[in-house]
Amino acid sequence: MFAARIDQIQPFKVMEVLDRAAEFEAAGATVVHFEVGEPDFPTAAPIVAAGMEALSAGHTKYTSATGIAPLKEAIVGHYQRLGLDVPASRIVITSGASAGLTLLAGLLLDPGDELLITDPGYPCNEVFARLAGGIPRAIPLGPNQGFQPAVEDVAQAWGPATKGVLLASPANPTGTMLDGEAIAAIAAYARGRDGFFILDEIYQGLSRRDLAAAKDYASGLSFADDLFILNSFSKYFGMTGWRLGWLVVPEPAVEGVTKLAQNLFIAPNAPAQYAALAAFSPAALEIHEERAAVFAARCRRLSDGLQQLGFHVPVTPDGAFYLYVDVSHTGMSGADFCSRLLEEFQVAVTPGDDFGRHQHERYVRFAYTTSEAAIDLGLERVDEALSAWGLG
Amino acid sequence: MFAARIDQIQPFKVMEVLDRAAEFEAAGATVVHFEVGEPDFPTAAPIVAAGMEALSAGHTKYTSATGIAPLKEAIVGHYQRLGLDVPASRIVITSGASAGLTLLAGLLLDPGDELLITDPGYPCNEVFARLAGGIPRAIPLGPNQGFQPAVEDVAQAWGPATKGVLLASPANPTGTMLDGEAIAAIAAYARGRDGFFILDEIYQGLSRRDLAAAKDYASGLSFADDLFILNSFSKYFGMTGWRLGWLVVPEPAVEGVTKLAQNLFIAPNAPAQYAALAAFSPAALEIHEERAAVFAARCRRLSDGLQQLGFHVPVTPDGAFYLYVDVSHTGMSGADFCSRLLEEFQVAVTPGDDFGRHQHERYVRFAYTTSEAAIDLGLERVDEALSAWGLG
Repeated sequence: MFAARIDQIQPFKVMEVLDRAAEFEAAGATVVHFEVGEPDFPTAAPIVAAGMEALSAGHTKYTSATGIAPLKEAIVGHYQRLGLDVPASRIVITSGASAGLTLLAGLLLDPGDELLITDPGYPCNEVFARLAGGIPRAIPLGPNQGFQPAVEDVAQAWGPATKGVLLASPANPTGTMLDGEAIAAIAAYARGRDGFFILDEIYQGLSRRDLAAAKDYASGLSFADDLFILNSFSKYFGMTGWRLGWLVVPEPAVEGVTKLAQNLFIAPNAPAQYAALAAFSPAALEIHEERAAVFAARCRRLSDGLQQLGFHVPVTPDGAFYLYVDVSHTGMSGADFCSRLLEEFQVAVTPGDDFGRHQHERYVRFAYTTSEAAIDLGLERVDEALSAWGLG
Repeated sequence: MFAARIDQIQPFKVMEVLDRAAEFEAAGATVVHFEVGEPDFPTAAPIVAAGMEALSAGHTKYTSATGIAPLKEAIVGHYQRLGLDVPASRIVITSGASAGLTLLAGLLLDPGDELLITDPGYPCNEVFARLAGGIPRAIPLGPNQGFQPAVEDVAQAWGPATKGVLLASPANPTGTMLDGEAIAAIAAYARGRDGFFILDEIYQGLSRRDLAAAKDYASGLSFADDLFILNSFSKYFGMTGWRLGWLVVPEPAVEGVTKLAQNLFIAPNAPAQYAALAAFSPAALEIHEERAAVFAARCRRLSDGLQQLGFHVPVTPDGAFYLYVDVSHTGMSGADFCSRLLEEFQVAVTPGDDFGRHQHERYVRFAYTTSEAAIDLGLERVDEALSAWGLG
């Protein structure tokens, strides 16, 4: 009775990791968590306070389908601080970037249309394409290209049924960014094919401060004004459980995406929208910047530590909070490495299986969404594991 | 560049009504609002208080994709109070019934599959079908059948590409319910065709207390255990802006709908889930029951008033908060009636155009989501309108 797309959805391996880690913890063990794609910090206090004020002020009704005007204005201000001029009319507030992906799939994909995505990449992307009857087509990427496509890779993958491309910068699971020139070139190519270019910037603000000039940009909108931008309050702004994000869409798409949002969502969560107004307050921004610096410090600590233990970290992440690590020298697949590390040493890591089908056996993803003390403990245990396995 | 489904989405006429009403109000006029499909009551205080407690307790992280266990247990208890035994494993918490519809469309419809819906009906239903590449097919319904299909109507509409049927009880815009026998018969028919039956019960709890025995049931689950049930915290529980609802799915669908929820939503809003726990507290239930009684009283007041003014109310609603009124005796279409009533007398009503294409010109929908005083003022103005138009 079920639609074909259901069988095409791969179960997340990380779910097994999470369940098994919970079993260890229930039995009293300390688990080091490198598997969680969610900031460990609580939502910043000024945002929580604004959420409580919103509730006590009665902001519990439907809002406009594309979000409240003051939040759109706050996002306009956000882009202005980054040196970009984005009109409020092109901003659509969504129930997380997830809802943004549903809107874009619904807006842009007819059944049978192909969407280019990356392998490795965010595993849910292909499910959004399939939801709309579209067909995801992966561009296989390796470390020698920083796990990001050049325009030639996009052109090579673009077939007669291809309607557009979805890339992320910084990306999950690698943390790498597209450089500005590549964004401009891919946008020009897509434009030339009458196609679209969706750029996932949900890790915006969580990029290293010492980036090379080609990646030292605030948004891909600097290089192409007709991108479809996905963004989120979950990562830099620390609002995962509130389920709030936004899109920036080209002006000709506003009417269609608005109609879809009215029909498919009615409105995003109202208290979350009012709370998010405080996410741009100076007090909250100070907290977010501190946390971004913490993530950068953790990245160095974990990356250095793993390399000292003999791991190959093929690309230094430009941002986000992930490290994509090659474990092939251990002689184990990523899945086996993760399984044994958890079972024998209670360190939880996500296998590359969750991010694609191209050389995924070589890799595991470490998320540094845990304290420096936990990172140190994790490194100690990995060291012990290597010794125990005769690889130290 | 846009998908074909975008052009197939009809704009809501009610949006024009809302905009024009706002213009009148900005100019200082008093508008009587019969157009709003949202309870006028604020979220009950115990729920708001629980939301604030959830925020201060830090419940701002992702939850399980199908919702927190205590809320599923609370919904199990809800059904138990209604005399129904629904296991927690079959309950999926969603970001409003809207997200539930996305999940069911994704779960059940391949591109090209037909979904039977009703005309008149909730206008967004067809957009969810089209999101998944499905094809909505309307069953035309009239007042002589209470705007609800019999099993024969479903059987007649069921074609070779039909996969299932989506009905609502109580329904929007008519407020009528299916009787239990019809639910059982339609479920048996769908089962025989290896198809599915989605029953929208988002107005559960908002049914009249003096229903005939055939409609005096708590849920369609009493008549068929393999229904896909849509429900919501928006209507009876008064939580529109929180965007929270739930599904009850047959056991074999749990795995697929869970995978889809993980990929398409990650999780429902966390504070809303914790707040909703309080929706089932005795204090909150008392408030909800009082409000349900208020809606029933308003229904009688508005229905009696309109009939005294010579309107034909073809079916007495069994529940929800809508009255579907025949205005054909005025010689105006529903759209013209709405337009003139708003322009000349500042009474806002939704034309039948928003609910289908079958005899929609005859009808308008009055939502009694406004006070009895406003209802009285609205009736006075309608009376004046009829006099002014030479119809009094």
